[in-house]
Amino acid sequence: MPVAKFKRLKPSYGFDEVAIVPGDVTINPEQTNIELKIGSVTLGIPILASAMDGVVDVNFAILLSKLGGLAVLHLEGVQTRYDNPAEVLAEIAAAPNARVTALLQKVYQAPIKENLIGDRIRAIKKAGAVCAVTVLPANTKKFTPLIVEAGADILVVASTVTTARHISKSYRGLIFSELCQSVNIPVVVGNCVSYTACLELMQTGVSGILVGVGPGAACTSREVLGVGVPQITATIDCAAARDTYLKKSGRYVPIITDGGFKKGGDFCKAIAAGADGVMLGSVFAQAKEAPGHGYHWGMATPNPVLPRGTRIKVGTTAPLKQILFGPTSLTDGTQNFVGALKTAMGFCGASTIKEMHKAEMVIAPSITTEGKSWQLAGLRA
Amino acid sequence: MPVAKFKRLKPSYGFDEVAIVPGDVTINPEQTNIELKIGSVTLGIPILASAMDGVVDVNFAILLSKLGGLAVLHLEGVQTRYDNPAEVLAEIAAAPNARVTALLQKVYQAPIKENLIGDRIRAIKKAGAVCAVTVLPANTKKFTPLIVEAGADILVVASTVTTARHISKSYRGLIFSELCQSVNIPVVVGNCVSYTACLELMQTGVSGILVGVGPGAACTSREVLGVGVPQITATIDCAAARDTYLKKSGRYVPIITDGGFKKGGDFCKAIAAGADGVMLGSVFAQAKEAPGHGYHWGMATPNPVLPRGTRIKVGTTAPLKQILFGPTSLTDGTQNFVGALKTAMGFCGASTIKEMHKAEMVIAPSITTEGKSWQLAGLRA
Amino acid sequence: MPVAKFKRLKPSYGFDEVAIVPGDVTINPEQTNIELKIGSVTLGIPILASAMDGVVDVNFAILLSKLGGLAVLHLEGVQTRYDNPAEVLAEIAAAPNARVTALLQKVYQAPIKENLIGDRIRAIKKAGAVCAVTVLPANTKKFTPLIVEAGADILVVASTVTTARHISKSYRGLIFSELCQSVNIPVVVGNCVSYTACLELMQTGVSGILVGVGPGAACTSREVLGVGVPQITATIDCAAARDTYLKKSGRYVPIITDGGFKKGGDFCKAIAAGADGVMLGSVFAQAKEAPGHGYHWGMATPNPVLPRGTRIKVGTTAPLKQILFGPTSLTDGTQNFVGALKTAMGFCGASTIKEMHKAEMVIAPSITTEGKSWQLAGLRA
Amino acid sequence: MPVAKFKRLKPSYGFDEVAIVPGDVTINPEQTNIELKIGSVTLGIPILASAMDGVVDVNFAILLSKLGGLAVLHLEGVQTRYDNPAEVLAEIAAAPNARVTALLQKVYQAPIKENLIGDRIRAIKKAGAVCAVTVLPANTKKFTPLIVEAGADILVVASTVTTARHISKSYRGLIFSELCQSVNIPVVVGNCVSYTACLELMQTGVSGILVGVGPGAACTSREVLGVGVPQITATIDCAAARDTYLKKSGRYVPIITDGGFKKGGDFCKAIAAGADGVMLGSVFAQAKEAPGHGYHWGMATPNPVLPRGTRIKVGTTAPLKQILFGPTSLTDGTQNFVGALKTAMGFCGASTIKEMHKAEMVIAPSITTEGKSWQLAGLRA
Repeated sequence: MPVAKFKRLKPSYGFDEVAIVPGDVTINPEQTNIELKIGSVTLGIPILASAMDGVVDVNFAILLSKLGGLAVLHLEGVQTRYDNPAEVLAEIAAAPNARVTALLQKVYQAPIKENLIGDRIRAIKKAGAVCAVTVLPANTKKFTPLIVEAGADILVVASTVTTARHISKSYRGLIFSELCQSVNIPVVVGNCVSYTACLELMQTGVSGILVGVGPGAACTSREVLGVGVPQITATIDCAAARDTYLKKSGRYVPIITDGGFKKGGDFCKAIAAGADGVMLGSVFAQAKEAPGHGYHWGMATPNPVLPRGTRIKVGTTAPLKQILFGPTSLTDGTQNFVGALKTAMGFCGASTIKEMHKAEMVIAPSITTEGKSWQLAGLRA
Repeated sequence: MPVAKFKRLKPSYGFDEVAIVPGDVTINPEQTNIELKIGSVTLGIPILASAMDGVVDVNFAILLSKLGGLAVLHLEGVQTRYDNPAEVLAEIAAAPNARVTALLQKVYQAPIKENLIGDRIRAIKKAGAVCAVTVLPANTKKFTPLIVEAGADILVVASTVTTARHISKSYRGLIFSELCQSVNIPVVVGNCVSYTACLELMQTGVSGILVGVGPGAACTSREVLGVGVPQITATIDCAAARDTYLKKSGRYVPIITDGGFKKGGDFCKAIAAGADGVMLGSVFAQAKEAPGHGYHWGMATPNPVLPRGTRIKVGTTAPLKQILFGPTSLTDGTQNFVGALKTAMGFCGASTIKEMHKAEMVIAPSITTEGKSWQLAGLRA
Repeated sequence: MPVAKFKRLKPSYGFDEVAIVPGDVTINPEQTNIELKIGSVTLGIPILASAMDGVVDVNFAILLSKLGGLAVLHLEGVQTRYDNPAEVLAEIAAAPNARVTALLQKVYQAPIKENLIGDRIRAIKKAGAVCAVTVLPANTKKFTPLIVEAGADILVVASTVTTARHISKSYRGLIFSELCQSVNIPVVVGNCVSYTACLELMQTGVSGILVGVGPGAACTSREVLGVGVPQITATIDCAAARDTYLKKSGRYVPIITDGGFKKGGDFCKAIAAGADGVMLGSVFAQAKEAPGHGYHWGMATPNPVLPRGTRIKVGTTAPLKQILFGPTSLTDGTQNFVGALKTAMGFCGASTIKEMHKAEMVIAPSITTEGKSWQLAGLRA
Repeated sequence: MPVAKFKRLKPSYGFDEVAIVPGDVTINPEQTNIELKIGSVTLGIPILASAMDGVVDVNFAILLSKLGGLAVLHLEGVQTRYDNPAEVLAEIAAAPNARVTALLQKVYQAPIKENLIGDRIRAIKKAGAVCAVTVLPANTKKFTPLIVEAGADILVVASTVTTARHISKSYRGLIFSELCQSVNIPVVVGNCVSYTACLELMQTGVSGILVGVGPGAACTSREVLGVGVPQITATIDCAAARDTYLKKSGRYVPIITDGGFKKGGDFCKAIAAGADGVMLGSVFAQAKEAPGHGYHWGMATPNPVLPRGTRIKVGTTAPLKQILFGPTSLTDGTQNFVGALKTAMGFCGASTIKEMHKAEMVIAPSITTEGKSWQLAGLRA
């Protein structure tokens, strides 16, 4: 009888299951450099804002660019379906939980007005900001000329799962290598989570990869589809693909871990795991300047047949600048993300993001153990 | 002194501990084929309904068959003990928790009326539906002629744990190879959870295997007996038995993972782990058409001496068609099971169930980690 | 520089982390034999009652013996310190939580009345029951003559941790080999949890070993001292010692897993892990006939300087006979322990306890996962 | 294509995930010796009090020294910033949670009065107590002459993470080897958590190492920075460094596990994992004599830009002497730490701390499993 073959399951880890080990050398946080380069664009801080309608509008994009980061505007959301998206956003914020998915399904059935694509991009550029926009793969070929013409700096092509090889009878699949050659701005693609899928995407010539399927606060892919990989493992695997590709091609393609972040500690862990940058959704949805009025929802939520996300209330906590740079009196890690990264890099003796990639990490019990029950009790007292 | 031999414990995993990794190729969900073949019977969707009295009656069986699936009617439950089972089912639904086990123990002591066996089967067949029925091993020889004569399409012989070799002094054990040769319809047997037990059952000539001991929502075998194997591991092990048997015999015997499903994601994970189909209990007990009025209980619950199950209230949430195919505004994975599977297969580039068996899987922290606390808070807000 | 040596940590498992895999053969539960032999004494069922004052008094010992099991009476508790222990037990039951440890500390400072040792033993023997009693190691030499003379059948020498080699300046350590040679009744010793400690104890000539440090419901050794090993691992390790010793000496010394049991499933798992019998405390404290009035506390609780235990309220749920043999309408595993073991053995095709030792086991997620949330919700509804 | 290199994650463990295995020999607790030597100073019990303002003031230091332990006074906290620190401490205790971080940030901006450094040290020495004080690395060179001159016995140089090689442009890093040669009292340095970092620190000539980053009850480094290693793993790794260094140099440098302790069991586990001593914060903050009025906060909490800690309410439970030596009526391990260690050492047959380092340990499920739910229910009853 032949030898039986059992399916192998590989362990995987998320932010809450790991921790960073301090290094043998320490360095002053002020001496760290945390720049992120995406193609020809250099960002002062390695932080992007998710292309989600509760997070990014024109004003938010301008503000985050001035602070050194980069917001990505979704061109298939309310910003291009409505002349006055603020009205719609207010309506979404006001809807009760029981009715909100149905409302979102309705709101997102309004057609995209192509003229608004250019309008939104030009508004961002006019303010002197770096402009990045997202389209879905199916509409990329149609919208790209408008996007490039309006002056966008970075094109993000993203869906829940994107691969270099998509099979479809209904339309000829988007060929990323053709896209990269035809546009003169950096193309960022996502999302992916595995070594091979990431490597194949890099080989098409893209300038950046979004990493993450399933982890986001407003995403329910894991429940609905069972599909997803926890972010630390996804980041480690895609970082290995980046390093393999670099050795082979000489070209460094940054990976941006996208989704699931709650605290500065999560941000530091993603970088230590190998990310060149991160993309924050629910964290930024809490900013005073976020368009969602303290609400946040995924772009797969409005799917009329199989919604995979939900609107969540994150509240409005502080100005964007304070979330990024402090100062803060909160001790739970929800503010001063940049200070957290620089301090953690200092503890690891890392003066650059690439050095931070070498930091040791451990699989560690969640921070709710080891004496932390006092803390919770204390906070309630 | 001889070398000590310590008992080895093998790790095992359930739905909540694993996740599916997207593939390197993606495919349009519309291009997937999810048929399930059991002997000569082909089902459009690989979903069976559990032979449990709160889930399946004649009407439910007819409806599910029309929708492409297959309901299994239990021939040793209320459907054959009572001329008017609806009355008894209403009584069970109305009983308070404290008294329901005692009531179930009483209800199931009524004798089986053999004439009802034929009546129920004929009612299903008359409506043009595929008809599958379950009997316990001890009564199989007695009831099989009635079942075959009435025109059933599939015979399911099932108990908590079934093996090819049962030892009993009180009655000559059921010999599955004899049974398979004597009846002209496919025989499905269960339940089992291990490689060797599954392989031995396949070697008897059966046409399908039910996989699962202990996981069901209405089952307490794990508490009462300590016996059971989490469903992902059970499925992986039995899938390896199927593949071994196929190589040896050339015959493909589908395995059907039975019990413990709550969400579409669980369904997708079972298929990715190697299942050819699944059997849903509590999920279908929530259908508007389920006979249990939103209540669900296991067939081991009424055991007069050692009840191993309990009646649970699952509520009535939607029509069966919507649970299977959507559309839905729920984002928690409890509706549109078929859409979920097709989407997950698309993300894995699998155009058939057998291709989906090759999807990579990871051991992943439960979906309650990684930023999901927002979600819960949001849902309550 | 020399190679660094890091302390190794070995994984260990308790009842809630494992499950039993059904076998390739099944057997009718009625055909199983579950006898336990301790030296010359044969018990019909492999279940002992803990030598704890809320569990065992003379009446309880008589009743359990008639039902086939064996209760162990503690000779250094209230039964020998008070002519009328029932009064003291009522006082303990009536004390509020905040004051009960102080009360226990006071109650157990009353001196042991040596005449009561013989009285209690004779009362049990007069009823025709098998009589087992416990003493602490320090008092074993002093009390043993009284115990043997009064006619006890089994002598249990037990403390939190007992080894074959105890070092003390204040008294000459108890030598178990001398004890076993000097008394003509079986000596059971405990508690231990490791292979080597158990093996050394067996080599002294004892007739049984109690296995378990730290797991009991009324024990807080893990919190106070950090000392303890989860019961499945402790049982596996001590079973390996028993098998090693059997091969070497030809003598079979049963091991009795003591502490931490809540449900029939736990009992079955201990047997599958290698136990020849089990010792139940809190389970029996719930019996109508238990002397503790629904309360339960450990014998280390009254320690005046470092109490390591607590009084817990377990409630009074059913007669002892029903807890052991059913019938029951409870589906949570708290009743019909004997039926549970016989059924589990049937599912594993084991006709004897020794065959059950060969059952496969898996490390399995707790039974709170996989669809069980319905159950809890249902029970509350 | 080159072979991919994936980042490796090493498992790590905290107090709640491990347990101590009793030994093959047992010993009377009275025969154990638990001395700790730090350079020329010998402590009767291996317990230090954290240099935290809610824990240690002059009076507390005198008392703990008389009881055999050692309190470390922080010279950069309220004791040297305020002539009358008691006033400030009362103000902190009275502040509501929402305002306390801001208050702490303000309180700790008052300048250090250098004259108070000498005053505090002399007050401790005058009472005949051993005096240990803490300074941050940046101020070590400036304050050391004052400290030595005032007669301190031990100098502790500590910050969240300290390495032998710190890189800074703004000041010339502290060279520990120079410091150790220039002062005539033992220098203790911390904190560190890894083998290599600990080994490098030992090679500078220091007399003791503090082990622990992130675990403390009042510390939120894990949330804010993602940095930290659970204490059992940190202790095992640093103990290996100590043993390596001892073999190479012949010098024994004790390691002191600092932070995260709640119960006597945690203390025993740290020692069994390899610690020579421990440093307690929140445990001592509960003492009647602690200056914090039942409140406790970390010294990183007042950081004006990135606070990494929080004030927690621990309450005031008992005199220091009772926390250390009992007697107690509490059974949860929060009192009689010394009795717990001596009893645990007795169970492991260890007569000295170094022998206790050889105790076996297991990775064990948290003590909340295995029948412990009764306990909680009982305590609430």
